[in-house]
Amino acid sequence: MVKINQVLLSAGVHGNEKTGIYLVKKFKNNQKLISRNSFATKTLLINNKAIELNTRYYEVDLNRCFDLETINSDYKENKLHEQLLAQKIYQQVKEAKIDFVLDFHTSTSNMGLTLMLSNDRPFNLRLAAYLVAINPLVKIVRSNNLQYNNRFRHIFPLGFTVEMGAIAPNVIDPIWFEQVEILVEQILDYIEQSNHNKQPLSPEIVPIYSMSEAIYFPTDSQGDIAGIVSTQLHGNDYFALHPNEIIFNKFDGKKVIYDGTTTVYPIFINEAAYWENKIAMYLTTKEEKIITSVLK
Amino acid sequence: MVKINQVLLSAGVHGNEKTGIYLVKKFKNNQKLISRNSFATKTLLINNKAIELNTRYYEVDLNRCFDLETINSDYKENKLHEQLLAQKIYQQVKEAKIDFVLDFHTSTSNMGLTLMLSNDRPFNLRLAAYLVAINPLVKIVRSNNLQYNNRFRHIFPLGFTVEMGAIAPNVIDPIWFEQVEILVEQILDYIEQSNHNKQPLSPEIVPIYSMSEAIYFPTDSQGDIAGIVSTQLHGNDYFALHPNEIIFNKFDGKKVIYDGTTTVYPIFINEAAYWENKIAMYLTTKEEKIITSVLK
Repeated sequence: MVKINQVLLSAGVHGNEKTGIYLVKKFKNNQKLISRNSFATKTLLINNKAIELNTRYYEVDLNRCFDLETINSDYKENKLHEQLLAQKIYQQVKEAKIDFVLDFHTSTSNMGLTLMLSNDRPFNLRLAAYLVAINPLVKIVRSNNLQYNNRFRHIFPLGFTVEMGAIAPNVIDPIWFEQVEILVEQILDYIEQSNHNKQPLSPEIVPIYSMSEAIYFPTDSQGDIAGIVSTQLHGNDYFALHPNEIIFNKFDGKKVIYDGTTTVYPIFINEAAYWENKIAMYLTTKEEKIITSVLK
Repeated sequence: MVKINQVLLSAGVHGNEKTGIYLVKKFKNNQKLISRNSFATKTLLINNKAIELNTRYYEVDLNRCFDLETINSDYKENKLHEQLLAQKIYQQVKEAKIDFVLDFHTSTSNMGLTLMLSNDRPFNLRLAAYLVAINPLVKIVRSNNLQYNNRFRHIFPLGFTVEMGAIAPNVIDPIWFEQVEILVEQILDYIEQSNHNKQPLSPEIVPIYSMSEAIYFPTDSQGDIAGIVSTQLHGNDYFALHPNEIIFNKFDGKKVIYDGTTTVYPIFINEAAYWENKIAMYLTTKEEKIITSVLK
């Protein structure tokens, strides 16, 4: 049976995602909201330089720097602000012996309250399934692809990245702020009950969306974006996209069709932060995951 | 009777407001969409350096640089990128003898299709009133306060800034993209008919929202933001705010009340670009403006 002693509530891995940042600031100044008997809850703002600048990052995206090579303190190539910060934060987290993380992010896509699993351990899956059952805004995403395993959440034994939205950068959205406060309460209460050997029951099956591939905007001969996401897709994250349906409408009047052979579920549709890489969305496959009922 | 010979469709005064930028690019490559018999239509992307960087501006907000002092070519103090650009663009516009501008912007606030008047000339007001009558998304705003008269639109005899939203920066929103294309067609057709002495009729009365003052976020002793816009206000731009209604919920649990004595109509609520100045919204007063029926 898992015993959780240290929980971390973090934000500001991206400095312009203010809704999560001010939620963590609120928790820091109102400790009774996050206190439970059986474990300690810490708060942390990660990239203070980017927070001050109101930008996603200063030199490079911090949430792509938590790969094993970069965070290894023997690795001497790290020179950029965020690479050095990733090493420092990794050491802090190890020393603090954090068991479980909730790392708050916002997305300009209609992601609701998306929980991105740090890994597939049974505790994570049971908690995720429980939250899907009690909170209609919650969706569960995992990234099986190793190239995505460089996020802050990956340095913790348990926990999630929380992606809430649609929220524009540098906006505190009061409606999502309230919803994520409710989510945090649900999660902390679950951990508390679990630590007291009263883990709430989870459904036996939960839908999990696995990220498969990035879809890039169509471009012209100069490399500039040559079309936009179809009106049917925009704002409809987690809806089914079937073979031969339209993905992009090009400015020259032509259409780009989804040429896959299976139904997929696009997420992060028109995420502004992915603009610089010309990523228009990620495709996911939906799996009805069976949750083990054995507590471990 | 006004005769309009040159129309300008511009975007990229702010480099990260991509929906307008790609609309103008589409028009540039599909001239037949914007061609009319009685006038010429030009397209222009303004701050190409900021567009390339995907940022609002490079050194200073360009849309605060079109005051008479800065754009006067004898003024030698201009050293920042956007101040020099404002001088250059002003000269271009004068030489091209542009009569009418549509300058496209996006807002993270729920602004619909807001037309911000370059001035109160009768042609502007009649066209605005006509658009309110035929297009349910259109709202009309003017800034009587001289401190706001430094926007790009102010260097033209006629026209509007178009603020569409809610749209996050660096997102092409396909739904608003379509809506603003419809708006452009309605405006160009109106100008065409007007040039042929067949100006469509306008309603005699139109609601116009006049910007009165900025409302700042509450701050703590360190100057950090100490509360968020109430859930009743967020997303409800142009809705009435009455005396004694809540504006902010502070993180310490206290509330901030609107202490004015008259009903006002907040706009640009939680506009991300105003975060750096800690502006949470602008208040407007609503006037039922009588439109002159005399053509001049």
